[in-house]
Amino acid sequence: MKTIKVGLVGFGTIGTGVAKLLLLEKERIALRTGCDVQLVKIADLDTTRDRGIQLPEGMLTADYHEILNDPEISLVVQLVGGTGIERTIMLEMINAGKNIVTANKALLATFGEEIFEAARKNGVSVAFEAAVGGGIPIIAAISESLAANEIESIHAILNGTCNFILSNMEENGSDYAETLKEAQRLGFAEANPAMDVEGSDTAQKLAILSHIAFGTRLDWKDIPKDGIETVSGIDFRFASMLGYSIKLLAIANRTKGANGVADKLELSVCPTLVKKGLPIAAVSGAYNAVSVVGDAVEHSFYYGKGAGELPTASAVVADVMDTVVGRTKITFDTLNLWNPERKTGENIEIAQAADVTGHYYLRVMVEDRVGVVAELTQILASAGISISSCVQVAAEDNMVPLIIMTHETTEGAVLNAIQAMNGLECVKSETVRMRIYG
Amino acid sequence: MKTIKVGLVGFGTIGTGVAKLLLLEKERIALRTGCDVQLVKIADLDTTRDRGIQLPEGMLTADYHEILNDPEISLVVQLVGGTGIERTIMLEMINAGKNIVTANKALLATFGEEIFEAARKNGVSVAFEAAVGGGIPIIAAISESLAANEIESIHAILNGTCNFILSNMEENGSDYAETLKEAQRLGFAEANPAMDVEGSDTAQKLAILSHIAFGTRLDWKDIPKDGIETVSGIDFRFASMLGYSIKLLAIANRTKGANGVADKLELSVCPTLVKKGLPIAAVSGAYNAVSVVGDAVEHSFYYGKGAGELPTASAVVADVMDTVVGRTKITFDTLNLWNPERKTGENIEIAQAADVTGHYYLRVMVEDRVGVVAELTQILASAGISISSCVQVAAEDNMVPLIIMTHETTEGAVLNAIQAMNGLECVKSETVRMRIYG
Repeated sequence: MKTIKVGLVGFGTIGTGVAKLLLLEKERIALRTGCDVQLVKIADLDTTRDRGIQLPEGMLTADYHEILNDPEISLVVQLVGGTGIERTIMLEMINAGKNIVTANKALLATFGEEIFEAARKNGVSVAFEAAVGGGIPIIAAISESLAANEIESIHAILNGTCNFILSNMEENGSDYAETLKEAQRLGFAEANPAMDVEGSDTAQKLAILSHIAFGTRLDWKDIPKDGIETVSGIDFRFASMLGYSIKLLAIANRTKGANGVADKLELSVCPTLVKKGLPIAAVSGAYNAVSVVGDAVEHSFYYGKGAGELPTASAVVADVMDTVVGRTKITFDTLNLWNPERKTGENIEIAQAADVTGHYYLRVMVEDRVGVVAELTQILASAGISISSCVQVAAEDNMVPLIIMTHETTEGAVLNAIQAMNGLECVKSETVRMRIYG
Repeated sequence: MKTIKVGLVGFGTIGTGVAKLLLLEKERIALRTGCDVQLVKIADLDTTRDRGIQLPEGMLTADYHEILNDPEISLVVQLVGGTGIERTIMLEMINAGKNIVTANKALLATFGEEIFEAARKNGVSVAFEAAVGGGIPIIAAISESLAANEIESIHAILNGTCNFILSNMEENGSDYAETLKEAQRLGFAEANPAMDVEGSDTAQKLAILSHIAFGTRLDWKDIPKDGIETVSGIDFRFASMLGYSIKLLAIANRTKGANGVADKLELSVCPTLVKKGLPIAAVSGAYNAVSVVGDAVEHSFYYGKGAGELPTASAVVADVMDTVVGRTKITFDTLNLWNPERKTGENIEIAQAADVTGHYYLRVMVEDRVGVVAELTQILASAGISISSCVQVAAEDNMVPLIIMTHETTEGAVLNAIQAMNGLECVKSETVRMRIYG
C-alpha cells in the first residue's frame, strides 16, 4: 500500500475537523483510496489551545517550515485564511513540489492566477472544494458533473452567517442588530463580521464559481455587492405579504441578446427577495445552497452545511482523497483554471455593474404628507423605471414606509433614482434596495 | 489532440439527447477534455423514426455489431433498458475491450457483479451516473465528494413518474387513476407504468445507491416495497392537515445499536408522509431529489430533473468526458464496486424486511358502527404497536376513514396488524399503510 504523508497548516475549526477525520478515520480512508494517508505534521501559531483531539507527541508545531522542509510530505492542506503570509506559505509549498488542498477562497479569488501558474510550473495540483459552500460539492458539480452544460445561471446562498441572521430575523421578527449579537453569541458570526455581512466573502466565492462556470477573469471587488445591514424587520413583513423570503444571493446570470444567444454575464451580490416555493427560499439557518441552471441539465440544486468543523472537513478530506488517487491532477490539468490562456468556449463579456438588469424592491421611508408619492414616482419615471407595484402602510412616528417593486431595469438606473430620492426633503432615511428573484 | 471514437447503443429519448450533445457541442467538449470526442455510430432497431436531429449519412444502424466489431470505437454508451439482450450486448462490448457509460439501472442492480467482474478482467471501466437520479450527480456525490463520510441515511425521490403523479394529486385534489392517465397523456408515464408505480424502478436505484454508500450486496427484489396505487385523495387531505406531504421515498437508514454504533441497515421503498419544511417535501413534478446524511457532512441535499432527454444526457456525457480524461478509470479501480472482495469498512448487516423500524400512517376504511375503534386498537395493542394519534372523520356512504399514526414499530408488526384488521368484518377495504419521515 502506497503511503502519502500529509502536512496541515492551520489548526482552527476546520483544521481540527480535518485532523479528526485523517487520524480517527484512517482505516476508512485507506479502504477507499488504497493508500495509507498519514497526517504527520500540523503547523499553527497557537500550539497550546485544547481542540478536543489528542495528537501524537511532536505533531503540532508553530513553524510551518517543518512541513515545508520535509521532503516526505507531498500533500499540504492549507487552511489559514487571509492573503498576506498565507500567500507566501502557499507559494513556498507549491514551489517545494507539494500538492495543495485549500479552503482559502480569499487567496484564490485574489491571487488565483499566480498560485495556479506556480502549481502548473511545479507539476502539482491545487484542490479547493471546501473554499465554496462548505460541505456542498459544488466545485465538483460544476466542473465535472455538469461539464457537458453551458451554465445559464447560478443563484446561491454562500455565507452561513448572513443566512443565519436573515432567517432568524424572518422567523423571530427580530431586528438586525440584536440578531447579529445572538449570532455572535452562538458562534455563527465573527467578533468583526464585516467580511460576511458586507457581502465580501460571498463575492469572493461567486468570483471562484463564475471563473469555473463561465471562465470569467475579474477582481472579486468589481462585483457589485450590497450587504445585509440595511435589511430590517419591516422588509420581512412586506416580503412575506408579497410571497417572498429574503436571502443574500450571489447571482451569476447570462442574459440573452436579441437573437437568443448568450449576451453578457451579470454578476451581483445583493439581499434578494426570493419567491417562496423555490428550493432556495426554504434554506434557513447556517446552511448554504446553490441553484444552477444548465442548458442540458436544466434546474439543479445543491444544499448543505456551509461552514462548521466537520462539514467543511468532509470537503477537505474528499479533496485529499481525490489528490491521493490521482483524480485531482487530471481535473487540474484538464480544467486549466486561472490560466490566462484558458479557453472554455464561452468568451462571454461581463456586464458593467451599472448595466446589470433585474427587478427591484425599494423601501423608501418618507414623511407623511401630501404629494410625496408623486415626487418619488416622478423620479422613477425620469429614470425610465417602470413600477410593477407600490404599497404604502400607515405611518409610524410620522414616517411612512413606501414599498416599490419595479419591472426590469438596470442597477445604474436604480442607483441614480435612489440617489435622487435620498436627496428629497421628504425622504427621511437611506432608501433600501433589494433584488427580486422568482 | 487525442481522438476518442464513441458508439451509442439505443437511440430513444436519452440516446437522442446524448447524440445532440456529442454532435452539436463537440467544440465545448473538446475544450473541456482536451480530446476530440467523435460519435461515429448509433445502433437502434428503429432506424427510421425522426428524432429531430440530423445524423451524418451511415451513422445509424440496426446492428450493434457494427459498433462491437469496430476496433477503433473504444467507448460505448449503452442506453437500452432491460436485462435480456441488453446484458449480452453489455458483456460483449466489455469483452471487446470497450469502456462503458450506461444508464441501465436494472442491469446494474441485477447483474452488477457479472458486469463489473468482466470489466475488471478486461481492464475497462463502467460509468453509470445517469442510472440514478437523471441529471443529479448523486453517484459522484456519494462515491467521491462524500468519500470521507460514513453515510448514515439516504432518503430519496428517485422516480419522476411517481413524483409527478403524487404531486399532481396533492395540488389538484385529483384521484390516482385520472392523474395516471394525465401523466401518460403528457409523456410522464409509460403505457405500462408498473415498473414505476409499483416501486421496482425505485428499488433498483436504491440497491445501486446502497451498494455504493454501504457496500450492501443484495437482490433489489429483496427490498420491501410498496407502490403508489393505493394512495388516494383522502390521504393527501389528512397528510396536509397533519403538516405532511406524500412522496414515494427510497430509504436507507442505519440504525444505531445500544452502544450508539451502527447496527443494521434498513432499506425500504414506500409512500411516505414527509414533514413539510424538509427540502425533500417541496420536490414536485418530475423532479428527483436525494437527501444524504453523513457523519461529517451532516445533512446534504441534491435536486434536479430525474428524467428527460437532455437532463439525463447531461449525466451521460459527463461520464463520457470523465472516461475520456481518465477520471472514471481511477474511480472504477478505487471503488472496486460489485466486487465480492470489496471492503468498505462498513460490514453492516441488512435488516430483515420484517425488522425495519419506522413510524407509520394507517388508513382503515371502517363501517360506521359502535365498537369499531375498540376492535382496531385492540389489534394494534396485541401487536405491540403504540398509537401516537388517531383521527376519525364523518362517514361517507357509511364508510369511515380512520387514520392512525403509530409510534416507532416494525414493518413486520404493522403487516401483521394490517392482516388482522383486514380480516375484521367492519373493515371495508384494504388498509393503506405509509411510512412517516421527519
